Amino acid sequence: MKNYSELLKIINDKIAVTSYGSNPKNLYDPINYMMELGGKRLRPVLTLMACDLFDTNIVQALDAALAIEVFHNFTLVHDDIMDNAPIRRGKETVYKKWSMPIAILSGDLMLIKAIDLLALTTATPLLPILQVFNKVAANVCEGQQIDMNFEERDDVSFQEYIEMIALKTAVLLGGALKIGALIGGAVKEDADNLYNFGKNIGIAFQIQDDILDSFGEGKQVGKRIGGDIASNKKTLLLIELMEVVHKDDKILLKSILNNANPDNKINEVLKLYEKYQIKQFAEQKKQEYLKTAFEHLKLVQTESERKKILEHTALELMNRMS
Amino acid sequence: MKNYSELLKIINDKIAVTSYGSNPKNLYDPINYMMELGGKRLRPVLTLMACDLFDTNIVQALDAALAIEVFHNFTLVHDDIMDNAPIRRGKETVYKKWSMPIAILSGDLMLIKAIDLLALTTATPLLPILQVFNKVAANVCEGQQIDMNFEERDDVSFQEYIEMIALKTAVLLGGALKIGALIGGAVKEDADNLYNFGKNIGIAFQIQDDILDSFGEGKQVGKRIGGDIASNKKTLLLIELMEVVHKDDKILLKSILNNANPDNKINEVLKLYEKYQIKQFAEQKKQEYLKTAFEHLKLVQTESERKKILEHTALELMNRMS
Repeated sequence: MKNYSELLKIINDKIAVTSYGSNPKNLYDPINYMMELGGKRLRPVLTLMACDLFDTNIVQALDAALAIEVFHNFTLVHDDIMDNAPIRRGKETVYKKWSMPIAILSGDLMLIKAIDLLALTTATPLLPILQVFNKVAANVCEGQQIDMNFEERDDVSFQEYIEMIALKTAVLLGGALKIGALIGGAVKEDADNLYNFGKNIGIAFQIQDDILDSFGEGKQVGKRIGGDIASNKKTLLLIELMEVVHKDDKILLKSILNNANPDNKINEVLKLYEKYQIKQFAEQKKQEYLKTAFEHLKLVQTESERKKILEHTALELMNRMS
Repeated sequence: MKNYSELLKIINDKIAVTSYGSNPKNLYDPINYMMELGGKRLRPVLTLMACDLFDTNIVQALDAALAIEVFHNFTLVHDDIMDNAPIRRGKETVYKKWSMPIAILSGDLMLIKAIDLLALTTATPLLPILQVFNKVAANVCEGQQIDMNFEERDDVSFQEYIEMIALKTAVLLGGALKIGALIGGAVKEDADNLYNFGKNIGIAFQIQDDILDSFGEGKQVGKRIGGDIASNKKTLLLIELMEVVHKDDKILLKSILNNANPDNKINEVLKLYEKYQIKQFAEQKKQEYLKTAFEHLKLVQTESERKKILEHTALELMNRMS
């Protein structure tokens, strides 16, 4: 079994030698730019890990792994337009550096190139992995739209939030694992259990992310504590608070959220989080999703020794965040 | 052999019963809205016609035909954002009616749904038709970007213009035919000849379109004569004029193009078109592409009686335009 950094090197070496095309230059440059921005490469690493559980010839899953990373980067390019985000991984976003039309079009092309890469897979019939890919890809779009719709609403429930997160970010981790497993020759049941492992881990990651934004330490989080609160972002914490808050505090919360001073706002919301034990609630939910994830992993029919790398990766990512 | 209106009915009946999904509503509504806007459905009709050349069981090509129509509509949704176009087929464009983020995201989803539909094809191995689809899809993106790049340039050559048009619009006609042919069981050579028939017909259509904008009669064209001239659009006519115009007239042309009065501008440019016989040049080029198209069709190895429907369709569309 190869470990994370070995797999990361394989992915990065593959990215370094992959060409997506060159003409017209201002359409293909953003693709190379995005793919070279780096990052944890979590999704393609998961694809290789899942393949490795069943067949150590992981090279056969490499095109599919890259397909998933290209797809992920496509979503970032388009999301950055929708979110008016100027910076991504410390660099200008594509729509800022080039233009909005170029960001739309090079994103479209990345989606097409992702399918191209997936179709290079020869170890397994194309249709089942293409169907997993397409289902997950549609879910990611649905999740992004639901997230945007939440911005217009004040009555989002905890359950709705989890469903949104599952679609927007968690199913892609599940899909990355499932596709790797299928390429490695896994039976459907094992591939599905890995999907559910990834999906539940993904939800736990997002909950952790939401907790850290309000309760982490600045250095670890890499951004200002309370940024989500300052921008009225509908995190799990705020949604839960809105759901459980008593009548009087609800009025108080509304006036706090309308408060223009971000420091005051952050302090006041944190007080309410404490009063209603929101952090404890979120921690408990996170543990529940982690537990569900590991139950699915346990059901995967391969030597438990081989599965440790996935368990280890999930826990380490969680710890690195906290 | 089924004729155009019979095939159109099959396509429209299929569209009427096809669901792409429903939740979230404001993501899926634009897909249904676009697919119900109507139109000639030229591309999916070509797919069925090409299948019909080799195998009269055209139902086997219906999912792929719809895939191509969904793909085409995806390009319209994204192009309308890039072009700031408020109206499409007499109705509001998606980005105007909903929003720019929704237009980006529902367009993305249409591309994914197009691949989904294509993957439903069982009559033939998926990989070859997916590869044709993806190649053409990438070309369409490239063509759109090259077209946008032309807006910044004053030295576009006739040959560059033809290459742009081929990528942006013509190869999709070729791809629609090739995919239909492959599903009908055509050998590669025949499928390639149909691709080249469609590509060359597509170029001829675009040249005709450019001619009509300056020389058609308002009623037939369905829009104001000279609209392309008024908006300084780089049509084949203007590009050719810029390429052949003598030194003195070049200065005159530049001042005309900077003229704010559209009626004056149209008249003055038309005079130069006449002086340099630009219409005759364009007509000749159109005939050359038509001839090349029909030469490729002739090479397709099936009874010539069966091929008449394609010849007839191409000529009728051309006549209906003129």
